[in-house]
Amino acid sequence: MSKWYKNSGEKSEVVVSTRVRLARNLEEYPFPAKLDTAGKKQVNDLVRDALLGNTEDDLSFIEMESLSRAQTISLAERHLISPEFTGGAGHALLLSDDESVSIMLCEEDHVRIQVMEAGLALDSAYERADKIDNALAARLPLAFDERIGYLTQCPTNLGTAMRASVMLHLPGLGRSGQVAKISATVAKLGLIIRGCYGEGSSPIGDMYQLSNQVTLGISEKTAIDNLKSITQQLVAQELAMRERMLKNPAWEDKVYRAWGVLKSARLLSCEEFMDLASLVRMGAAQGLFDVKLEKIGELFADLQPATINAREGKNLEASQRDALRAAAVREALA
Amino acid sequence: MSKWYKNSGEKSEVVVSTRVRLARNLEEYPFPAKLDTAGKKQVNDLVRDALLGNTEDDLSFIEMESLSRAQTISLAERHLISPEFTGGAGHALLLSDDESVSIMLCEEDHVRIQVMEAGLALDSAYERADKIDNALAARLPLAFDERIGYLTQCPTNLGTAMRASVMLHLPGLGRSGQVAKISATVAKLGLIIRGCYGEGSSPIGDMYQLSNQVTLGISEKTAIDNLKSITQQLVAQELAMRERMLKNPAWEDKVYRAWGVLKSARLLSCEEFMDLASLVRMGAAQGLFDVKLEKIGELFADLQPATINAREGKNLEASQRDALRAAAVREALA
Repeated sequence: MSKWYKNSGEKSEVVVSTRVRLARNLEEYPFPAKLDTAGKKQVNDLVRDALLGNTEDDLSFIEMESLSRAQTISLAERHLISPEFTGGAGHALLLSDDESVSIMLCEEDHVRIQVMEAGLALDSAYERADKIDNALAARLPLAFDERIGYLTQCPTNLGTAMRASVMLHLPGLGRSGQVAKISATVAKLGLIIRGCYGEGSSPIGDMYQLSNQVTLGISEKTAIDNLKSITQQLVAQELAMRERMLKNPAWEDKVYRAWGVLKSARLLSCEEFMDLASLVRMGAAQGLFDVKLEKIGELFADLQPATINAREGKNLEASQRDALRAAAVREALA
Repeated sequence: MSKWYKNSGEKSEVVVSTRVRLARNLEEYPFPAKLDTAGKKQVNDLVRDALLGNTEDDLSFIEMESLSRAQTISLAERHLISPEFTGGAGHALLLSDDESVSIMLCEEDHVRIQVMEAGLALDSAYERADKIDNALAARLPLAFDERIGYLTQCPTNLGTAMRASVMLHLPGLGRSGQVAKISATVAKLGLIIRGCYGEGSSPIGDMYQLSNQVTLGISEKTAIDNLKSITQQLVAQELAMRERMLKNPAWEDKVYRAWGVLKSARLLSCEEFMDLASLVRMGAAQGLFDVKLEKIGELFADLQPATINAREGKNLEASQRDALRAAAVREALA
C-alpha cells in the first residue's frame, strides 16, 4: 500500500506534513512507568482488542521486541515512534499500512494515537485521531477528570492531551536567519518551533516542526485553529522570502547546483543529501525543476541511515549507504 | 571558418594540442630590440609581402596597435601570441582564419612562425612550419650561421631555433602528485614540463606543456622524435592512472559531480570552470559522458575572461562573465 507521504497535500510547497497526537490512559491501570512488563502487556492487549477492526484504518499490532534494531530506528526516522520507544518488553505499536496512523502502546502514556497526513491537514488529521479516540473510549474507560481533562503521566500534557504539529520546509526563512525571531513570536502565541533534523538554528534540510504547547484551558478546536492561522502566515512569509532569494543570482546558482549534484553524485551522505534536497525542493516548488514534492518527501523518509539498513536487511557501512542513497536519488530525479 | 581546436586529433584523450614554433631573423636588420618603430615596420612589411599569398594558409596581416586591449589579451589566452606581445607600435601578426598558423612579427625575433594542431601531430605541425619557413627563406635572406644554425636574439634559441611542444591534459598524474617526479625525469632528457594555467604543481585545469629545451647540436627531426616518444610514454602513464582513479568511488563521485555542476550551475568563475571541465574531460575520454573532447577544448579557449570580453565587445564585470560562462557551458553540454 502506498505510504501517506507519497500523497500531495495543501500548501505542500511549505507544509510537508501535519501530525496530530492524542495521549490517553486507561482509568484502571497505573501509568506505564509504574507497570511491570506483564501489566504493560495486559494494557496493550486491551487496547489492541478495542481498536483492531474498529477503526477506519486497517491496523497491524507489532510488539517492539520482535523488531530488529534497524527496523526500530527506521520507525523513529519516519516519525512513527518516538526515538525513546525502543524495542523493550511491553512496548507495542499499532500501525496502519500507509503509516498515516501509528499508535504507541505503553510509551509514556498507555496510548499515544498519532495521525499524519501530507500537507496542511489539521482538521482532517484531528478528525481521524478523534475517531480512533472515540473507538477506544467506547470500549475502555479512559482516565479523565471533568475539571482538568485527560490525565497524562507528564503534567505538561494534561487537558486536551493533544499535540498538533506541522512540519514546515523553511529554506527561505531558515537560511536568511529569521527563524530565531519567528521562534520568539510564536512562543508568545503558545506555539513552539524547532528543527526536525540536527541541532542549531539552521537544521539539516531546513525542516521545522511547529506545534502547540498549551493543552490546559483550551479546546482542541481553538488550539488547531490557532496553529493553522500561524502556519498560513509562515507559509506566506516563506514564499515571499523564496521569491526574493531566487532573484539573487548567487542563490539561484546554489539551487541549480544542488539539482546538478543530486542528479549526478555517486556518493551522498545523509546530511549532504538533506541539505541539497532542501534546495531542490524549494526550486521544485517554485517551478524550476520537474520533480514532484512528494517524491522528495519520499526520499527524505526512505534515505535515512537506519531505514536503508532496514530495507537492505543488514548493517551497511556508511560508504555503502552513501552509494545506495546517491543511486536512489539519481533514479528518482532522472 | 572553423578554428583548429574544433578538430579531433591523435591521442586526444591526453594530448590536447601540438605546437611548433620557429624563430627567424632577417639578415640585413638588427634584432627588434635594436630597431625603432620605423625599422620594425619595414621588417614587418617585408615579411608580410614575402608570405601573403605564398603559403598554404590564407593569412591576414594585423597591426597589433589596431586591436583593443581585450582583443590582444584574448589572442594571448588562445596562445596565438605571447603575453608580452602587446599592442605596441611595430608589433604585427600574420594569422590564418582557423588560427592554426600565427606569425608574430618583431616580437623577440623578427619572425616567430607558430603552427598549432589538435592532438599529437608533431610531424605535421613541423612540416607546415617548415613550409612557411621555406617560403620566407626563398624570398628574404635569413640570419644563419653554418656552424651555429639560425641566429636569434636570445642565445637559448640558437641552432634549430625551434620549440616544439604538446599540451597535455594530465588530471590523473597531476592530481595524484606525480608531475614533480616526471618533471625531473624529462629534464634529464632535454625537455621541460610546466603548467599552462596558474602557478604551482597542480595547475588549473590540469593542462601542462611539454616542450624541447635543446636547440643547439641537435636536428629538428631528433628533437621532435624525442618529444614524441616521451609524450607517448606520458600518455600511457596518464591513461593507466585515470583507470585506477576512476575505480576509486570518491574520485568517480568527484568526476560525476563536476559533470552535474557544469550542466546546472548559473555562475562559473574561470578557475572553477577549468577545474571541473578538466574532470569532465577525463570522464568523457573514459566514456562516462557524451561530450566531444574538442567541445571541451573549445570551451577552454572561448571562456577565458578577455576572450569573453572581446566577443561581447565590452569590459564586463566578473559576475556577468560568470553568468555568460555558465550559460555557454550548459548549452555546450546539454
